[in-house]
Amino acid sequence: MPKSALPQPVMSVAEIETLLDEAFPQLHHGGRTVMVEAVGPMTARLRLIAHERHLRPGGTVSGPAMFTLADVGIWVGILAHNGPESLAAVTTNLNINFLRKPPHGDVIVDCRLLKLGKRLAVGEATLYSEGSAEPVAHAVGTYAIPAARK
Amino acid sequence: MPKSALPQPVMSVAEIETLLDEAFPQLHHGGRTVMVEAVGPMTARLRLIAHERHLRPGGTVSGPAMFTLADVGIWVGILAHNGPESLAAVTTNLNINFLRKPPHGDVIVDCRLLKLGKRLAVGEATLYSEGSAEPVAHAVGTYAIPAARK
Amino acid sequence: MPKSALPQPVMSVAEIETLLDEAFPQLHHGGRTVMVEAVGPMTARLRLIAHERHLRPGGTVSGPAMFTLADVGIWVGILAHNGPESLAAVTTNLNINFLRKPPHGDVIVDCRLLKLGKRLAVGEATLYSEGSAEPVAHAVGTYAIPAARK
Amino acid sequence: MPKSALPQPVMSVAEIETLLDEAFPQLHHGGRTVMVEAVGPMTARLRLIAHERHLRPGGTVSGPAMFTLADVGIWVGILAHNGPESLAAVTTNLNINFLRKPPHGDVIVDCRLLKLGKRLAVGEATLYSEGSAEPVAHAVGTYAIPAARK
Repeated sequence: MPKSALPQPVMSVAEIETLLDEAFPQLHHGGRTVMVEAVGPMTARLRLIAHERHLRPGGTVSGPAMFTLADVGIWVGILAHNGPESLAAVTTNLNINFLRKPPHGDVIVDCRLLKLGKRLAVGEATLYSEGSAEPVAHAVGTYAIPAARK
Repeated sequence: MPKSALPQPVMSVAEIETLLDEAFPQLHHGGRTVMVEAVGPMTARLRLIAHERHLRPGGTVSGPAMFTLADVGIWVGILAHNGPESLAAVTTNLNINFLRKPPHGDVIVDCRLLKLGKRLAVGEATLYSEGSAEPVAHAVGTYAIPAARK
Repeated sequence: MPKSALPQPVMSVAEIETLLDEAFPQLHHGGRTVMVEAVGPMTARLRLIAHERHLRPGGTVSGPAMFTLADVGIWVGILAHNGPESLAAVTTNLNINFLRKPPHGDVIVDCRLLKLGKRLAVGEATLYSEGSAEPVAHAVGTYAIPAARK
Repeated sequence: MPKSALPQPVMSVAEIETLLDEAFPQLHHGGRTVMVEAVGPMTARLRLIAHERHLRPGGTVSGPAMFTLADVGIWVGILAHNGPESLAAVTTNLNINFLRKPPHGDVIVDCRLLKLGKRLAVGEATLYSEGSAEPVAHAVGTYAIPAARK
């Protein structure tokens, strides 16, 4: 699609993780469990390392843990494309469908940005259990991007 | 992904359109404007032929017309995979994000089923204006599938 | 709640209807079927007069007709409080739950604004069939308010 | 509305809290922070006691903490009306709008059930900071209720 080439990320995975560590230390409260794995044109992939504090009885990853992974995933996608200025982007809406009980193990989130505007960004997140093709959850989120201060 | 091969449609495009004509004549009230273009494993593609009654001043396709296209698209995806028994499936939730003003012209919806259960099905729909790579809207819908009568 | 008295509408029902007739004649395409009944502090109530073109087989009001009523209802609530400048407000997200099949007859929508910001407004809409206490549908919508031109 | 009197809760606040303690001890991981305050016809009210682990820099309650409060609140409403059999109810969809940054202090959630069916229940949740009339968040959730085992 040469005419409408997708925007490229402006930050690397390492740069994003450094920024996250500084800006959101609470994400790693109790041990680092969210890893950025890859960013690409309008996409981001993160991994939630299964940890006792994310689990429900029976070993399934909790709803709030999946909510957080989807939310952070889309937000990282925005950050990767807009750069550190968008650290202040805040979630205004998030709609999540829980599709299946996730089995034991890590959860992967594949995010795709649907819109990357000046004031609003919208992205979707599909969550998979590692090694399974069927999604365990799917979310769509909207983020308000504060005007850059000058 | 050989172990978890995606389900295949059990109805052809022609069979679906014949069924739609019988079951939902009101969809074509005022002239046929929604066409099923393709079905595939867990997917369906439909086209909304731009018609005066879907337009807002300025020539943009209306929100309710996009809502209807997304809703019918996911529902056709379910029908294609579950067969005529699921004609009675009803929308229980639909979340739609309007991303850009669609320009003049037809709107294409690409649907992907996220879950195809016995009682609930969930799908997502991405709407494009023909010839453009940027989506104009995105929706996620949940459908309740009535138990088969015996 | 004296400290946080709710904002009052700045337009009357008659003023709103006049504005709607001018700005959205297509809403009344085929006969006037949406009536504004009341506006109050952060609220609006509209009525959809049941008309053949909103019905599905069996006489139930269609999903797209309920979507439109919820969307117009919240938008009217914003208009009533922000005045004609917000005619340009556009829906960015709408999430609707269909709860019961509406019986024959008019549908009433009760809207409540949850946030009335400078750039974003959020409202919810509960839809009832006239004479019934149980809602037939419920929606939440977000609207982007363009910056006033100067 | 005598003809359609709203369903009454079948469990008391104390009975619900006892059940929650047994069934969801992880809710109180790190100290009890969610309290059921009241249940009524199709309603439930809960309180999140502000605790360091729910906070973001600046002292604001985090998005995931508000998501959890809304989710637990609607689920408690279902439990209060359906009884212990519905302990197995699971969230299938949750749509949340973040409206304002909550200030320091407890967050109250007022839940209202919109539908209480045999297979599906739908409720809405409005979150307030204690002492403020303006909601900080609003959510709508759908819950699948497993068939009772016999």
